[in-house]
Amino acid sequence: MICTKEMDMAKGTDYYGRFMDYMKMYHENDLDGCCAQTDGKGDRLKRPSQQADPDQYVHIVEERDDGIIVSGFKMSITQAAYADEIFVLPTRALMEDDRDYAVAFAVPGDWEGMTLITRPVWLREKDEPDCAPFCKYGVSDSVIVFDNCFIPKERVFMCGEWEFGRRLALLFADSHRHSYSGCKPGVSDILCGVTALAAEANGIQKVSHVREKLSEYAGAAELAFAAGVAAAVFGEKTSSGVFFPNTIYSNVGRRLTGELIYHEYNTLTEIAGGIGVTLPFSEDFEYAPLKEQLERFIVRNPNFTPEESLKVWKLVENVGASPMTAWYEIAGVHGGGSPIMETIALGIEYDYDTRKNLARYLGGIDKEFDDSPDIEREPTFGDGLMTERQDFKE
Amino acid sequence: MICTKEMDMAKGTDYYGRFMDYMKMYHENDLDGCCAQTDGKGDRLKRPSQQADPDQYVHIVEERDDGIIVSGFKMSITQAAYADEIFVLPTRALMEDDRDYAVAFAVPGDWEGMTLITRPVWLREKDEPDCAPFCKYGVSDSVIVFDNCFIPKERVFMCGEWEFGRRLALLFADSHRHSYSGCKPGVSDILCGVTALAAEANGIQKVSHVREKLSEYAGAAELAFAAGVAAAVFGEKTSSGVFFPNTIYSNVGRRLTGELIYHEYNTLTEIAGGIGVTLPFSEDFEYAPLKEQLERFIVRNPNFTPEESLKVWKLVENVGASPMTAWYEIAGVHGGGSPIMETIALGIEYDYDTRKNLARYLGGIDKEFDDSPDIEREPTFGDGLMTERQDFKE
Amino acid sequence: MICTKEMDMAKGTDYYGRFMDYMKMYHENDLDGCCAQTDGKGDRLKRPSQQADPDQYVHIVEERDDGIIVSGFKMSITQAAYADEIFVLPTRALMEDDRDYAVAFAVPGDWEGMTLITRPVWLREKDEPDCAPFCKYGVSDSVIVFDNCFIPKERVFMCGEWEFGRRLALLFADSHRHSYSGCKPGVSDILCGVTALAAEANGIQKVSHVREKLSEYAGAAELAFAAGVAAAVFGEKTSSGVFFPNTIYSNVGRRLTGELIYHEYNTLTEIAGGIGVTLPFSEDFEYAPLKEQLERFIVRNPNFTPEESLKVWKLVENVGASPMTAWYEIAGVHGGGSPIMETIALGIEYDYDTRKNLARYLGGIDKEFDDSPDIEREPTFGDGLMTERQDFKE
Amino acid sequence: MICTKEMDMAKGTDYYGRFMDYMKMYHENDLDGCCAQTDGKGDRLKRPSQQADPDQYVHIVEERDDGIIVSGFKMSITQAAYADEIFVLPTRALMEDDRDYAVAFAVPGDWEGMTLITRPVWLREKDEPDCAPFCKYGVSDSVIVFDNCFIPKERVFMCGEWEFGRRLALLFADSHRHSYSGCKPGVSDILCGVTALAAEANGIQKVSHVREKLSEYAGAAELAFAAGVAAAVFGEKTSSGVFFPNTIYSNVGRRLTGELIYHEYNTLTEIAGGIGVTLPFSEDFEYAPLKEQLERFIVRNPNFTPEESLKVWKLVENVGASPMTAWYEIAGVHGGGSPIMETIALGIEYDYDTRKNLARYLGGIDKEFDDSPDIEREPTFGDGLMTERQDFKE
Repeated sequence: MICTKEMDMAKGTDYYGRFMDYMKMYHENDLDGCCAQTDGKGDRLKRPSQQADPDQYVHIVEERDDGIIVSGFKMSITQAAYADEIFVLPTRALMEDDRDYAVAFAVPGDWEGMTLITRPVWLREKDEPDCAPFCKYGVSDSVIVFDNCFIPKERVFMCGEWEFGRRLALLFADSHRHSYSGCKPGVSDILCGVTALAAEANGIQKVSHVREKLSEYAGAAELAFAAGVAAAVFGEKTSSGVFFPNTIYSNVGRRLTGELIYHEYNTLTEIAGGIGVTLPFSEDFEYAPLKEQLERFIVRNPNFTPEESLKVWKLVENVGASPMTAWYEIAGVHGGGSPIMETIALGIEYDYDTRKNLARYLGGIDKEFDDSPDIEREPTFGDGLMTERQDFKE
Repeated sequence: MICTKEMDMAKGTDYYGRFMDYMKMYHENDLDGCCAQTDGKGDRLKRPSQQADPDQYVHIVEERDDGIIVSGFKMSITQAAYADEIFVLPTRALMEDDRDYAVAFAVPGDWEGMTLITRPVWLREKDEPDCAPFCKYGVSDSVIVFDNCFIPKERVFMCGEWEFGRRLALLFADSHRHSYSGCKPGVSDILCGVTALAAEANGIQKVSHVREKLSEYAGAAELAFAAGVAAAVFGEKTSSGVFFPNTIYSNVGRRLTGELIYHEYNTLTEIAGGIGVTLPFSEDFEYAPLKEQLERFIVRNPNFTPEESLKVWKLVENVGASPMTAWYEIAGVHGGGSPIMETIALGIEYDYDTRKNLARYLGGIDKEFDDSPDIEREPTFGDGLMTERQDFKE
Repeated sequence: MICTKEMDMAKGTDYYGRFMDYMKMYHENDLDGCCAQTDGKGDRLKRPSQQADPDQYVHIVEERDDGIIVSGFKMSITQAAYADEIFVLPTRALMEDDRDYAVAFAVPGDWEGMTLITRPVWLREKDEPDCAPFCKYGVSDSVIVFDNCFIPKERVFMCGEWEFGRRLALLFADSHRHSYSGCKPGVSDILCGVTALAAEANGIQKVSHVREKLSEYAGAAELAFAAGVAAAVFGEKTSSGVFFPNTIYSNVGRRLTGELIYHEYNTLTEIAGGIGVTLPFSEDFEYAPLKEQLERFIVRNPNFTPEESLKVWKLVENVGASPMTAWYEIAGVHGGGSPIMETIALGIEYDYDTRKNLARYLGGIDKEFDDSPDIEREPTFGDGLMTERQDFKE
Repeated sequence: MICTKEMDMAKGTDYYGRFMDYMKMYHENDLDGCCAQTDGKGDRLKRPSQQADPDQYVHIVEERDDGIIVSGFKMSITQAAYADEIFVLPTRALMEDDRDYAVAFAVPGDWEGMTLITRPVWLREKDEPDCAPFCKYGVSDSVIVFDNCFIPKERVFMCGEWEFGRRLALLFADSHRHSYSGCKPGVSDILCGVTALAAEANGIQKVSHVREKLSEYAGAAELAFAAGVAAAVFGEKTSSGVFFPNTIYSNVGRRLTGELIYHEYNTLTEIAGGIGVTLPFSEDFEYAPLKEQLERFIVRNPNFTPEESLKVWKLVENVGASPMTAWYEIAGVHGGGSPIMETIALGIEYDYDTRKNLARYLGGIDKEFDDSPDIEREPTFGDGLMTERQDFKE
């Protein structure tokens, strides 16, 4: 919505009204959507038009009166397999010869010419009878292949406006980073709760170093959440009427969570102990000749029954040593942009010049403090790091 | 104001009105105050009444109709030497036999019976002619000795209400921690600006690892500021009518800054190089036989004149290798409560129980998620760490 | 061998000769052994004799002329399922009333009265035809239940000498920590190689931040290895004739690896990207209608064929997002003693007193520097942290 | 000695014998020398011959039969002011047009044409009567200006052999990095001792988090020392007959100390508290009207007399908040090469290829593990980071 308005204003296109019509339909039908941004990308040091294989980025193959034909690969698209609608966006800044890669559209989840190759995280039957709630929730990621896929005109929201590639890519990335301030503390809450429960089941919840480590979850979760609050408080109204969160706060918050996620799992491991990877299988606990002994074995804190104790350690295993673990860790680093991407964004957007002027004043180089230097920030990512960006996107 | 109201409500005292009268006088005269909280504390593993020397904490020696007589030591009191008024508060939780240590009052800065032993940070004449602004600003800390000092009744705001010792101590500590979210980013801004300027003077401002390191200042400053914003957004109105910031956000923000301050100086050093401690003295640059050579020597980036180059490196020295450096570093760790104090505060106040209940639900131990457990948080600091707290305050 | 000699010298027992006879048989038959140290441990704040369930620690049930009867649980015993011989040792310091828990012996891997409940890491058929070497190597851990198990006298090497419980526990722990200086750098080498290969397959191997991150593996691996070298160089001959590595170096080396393991996986994730958890399954790459497209999709660096590219990303998945990942991470933290255990060991064994005397001399408190203070180190672990130790061993 | 031999072998020069004659004189006279490596360097992104001002690096102005004439700046040269002999070396890799900058020689400390501009760390009279030993030891750094300075032929050990610039620069740098494994643990020992003493004077030496923090000094000091031991064990004999330490271990050890130095000071501050920057001046403790009160004030642990207590806190101030503090911190980062320099060195010298081959084998790409790939390491620093190197040397 923001970018369609800006394109219309700059180029005289009519995307905004088209998008509003689409959005009305979307709301009226109460649809669920997902965003397909990350392309296959091929050689990460080359732009889309420089790739040996043109399909490494989704691109326009043909423009027709009634719509466009597109081809190319998107990857690491969480949620695509069960979304009503899929939004397709550019993943990076574009140059003039990347024009065909400046394309944005929305398609229903089962559209002809589009194939999803989907990988679920959990490899098990749905709704096992006594499956704990943690295991009932899952997620999947898809590679999406567009193979000469037709997109009707009313569903096309960018078509060749390469100057807006970076803008649209960042509108999604920055709002995604902002959303991490809300969703990632939920992951920390789970880890904090499981770790605190494991400490209790181990009977060590009052030990000093355990309490100190637990408090690190509070730091991770609440600083990230606070960054989200500040991004909202200092958000600004765009020309489309949509408010957008402040990008500095969005980026520092997202970066923090990306830097800490492995450490948070480390903390769970430190306090729960090794049992997450050495716990006998559930079947062994049901095996009659061993049952009595294993039920005694599993209790560490007498306030927990054998059944509860086993559930605690199964939860520790499921949270800290299951396929979901690696997914949370890797998505925790890369989803919405990995820490190096936020570092690059801050390198461009953070106002170093005013701070440098402050130093010039404090050092006696300038007589006055120039607190609003007339510097135009670089319009594109400033260095080669751009090329490694967003290997994982949600 | 908050605590006087609460004491009046609980104990039928009349401190609130007394304090409001005082505050009215304070506002009408546009006074500047400072808070003297940290006591000498003596043996850090003992409470005030257990000390061999009763003066290790400020205490009531005698109660009279017209006021009280107090004795004892306060220490590390920044700003006392140039404050109009000094507010004296307890520094920790108290037990019943600490009753005489439950005392709060305000005195003018030059009151009889009170001696300040003051240590300024900079040891130099005021207003050297060509002193850079950074060196013109300073600070000082005082030990304050109360020696049978009389405090008139209208200036006494707590007198024996030991049950409120912890409350009053934390009201100051937590609001001080909140204030760090505003003031400490200013220190980061200075360090960021000086480091960016040094990078420019070294001609290395575009090198990747330099840019990455600079972005860490953005993280430190803006996450701390965001914590302050969130603490304000989620603040609550107290019975006195005063709003108070959320303590979880205040504590996670303050802890972050306390953990990062040395690292921020490390970053300055990494990028500026060793010149901060090996730069020849100013007099050498004025010495005629060396002047021409040293002026050539000092220029690294041709966009800076010799005079500007020298000012940059003097600023690096003044910020990173002067008496002010250690003050900022040590105050950055301990002012308002060192990181271990915030860790203790989070250990008491953070809602681990709801998170543990979340884990119990996700692990299948509880059928429902109890998201508001009926747990009363421990009313006092839970362990011996309390005793090391607040060696440095303000 | 070391401890049997020391017990004989102190108590007039004859364990040393008995153990040498056993060891001769062990060498002559070229056997492979594993050590079962970690007990079930139950309530971690109580010693063995204080447990509600006596089987939480392996203990002597009966002493007979021809041997002993033992019962109890050992857990997290790597390698037990395929060892010729299993060595059983105490896991902690003992007091006089823990006498029955002071027991050490060796049994063949298939001994009557001993049950192994084993959990392998990989859940797949052995020797899949095109399984990459990484997946061919595996590991398993066992809970071991001793249920009135008879141990012949010639295989019993400690029987009631509780004063040597801590000594024997630490002899194993410290030599295990030393061994980490050799084996853990091998894990770092794998991670380093996979990360470097992923960087190459991504075409980003020359980017600055990638190279900086790769160098962290060098730091982790070589500092740990160096600690092992120094531990050997400064090892000492024991009364048994066996040399033993220096424990300070063994502990600082092991702690470093335990603190860094999650970070090393984080680095792999940062550089490889999200593909480790979003890569389509192998079967999809074999599915004819998708084969051509997925083979184009998977190539990022043209120096890699589609087949090689796929193998790189499967390796990234197997190393960074498979059941083996959590095992390496969790064993990397806890095997041989988690970081908190090394911290406790250093708290007891590191010579703080000489360093404190150095400070007393430098501060002018003592006239001379007393560089060999007559301090006896605490004979047992100094605080409650002991109770959380060694949840995961081997 | 190493490089003179190598130059002679490659170029037919006769430096080796000349240097051995010099070294014989040096030993016979039991001289003390210092190394002047770091040049002024000017624009850090340009090589010596590209500088606007040729004196930014020491260079040959004229070659004569009896010797050479040199000019240029060296900086941050510790110890120069009290060395008998000063060794001058190149500070970086050189290209052919840098030929005049390929120069090495030795001169007496008071040589004509050479001026030292010296900055001592402590600004006080020598041998104050009751100065604590810590304050009696000091250090100074010099800028050295060579102004058409004549160097006799017998003292010239490199003259135009630009191909050996990098070799000679690294021979000094790497041996200096190795020496850090010996000297830097001494700094950690002082910090550890002062922190332990401050903990004792604060009466908190048994508190868990204090003991955990103290153990970090053990990690820093002993891992660095171990790296030095391993570098020696794996050192190699050069063609000159001189043994040289292994550079990988030298670099990982030096980097660790450079990364930790600020953290070590942080630890002292955390445990000592704020008193290091708020302690009243010594004169105040001598002032009769305050003497009795301040002597009571200063005692925290009754096992320390007032005089001893004051000495502890003065030591904390001298170690943690004095001019010496910044010197140790900044030299701790940059002396011998800052962490980024070791990172660059590891990027070039560490054997990533063998590890990558290991990954190729484990992933099934190669059938065999090629454990000695025929890769020639890059002969010069591989990227622009070189240009920021060695701002601080010695």
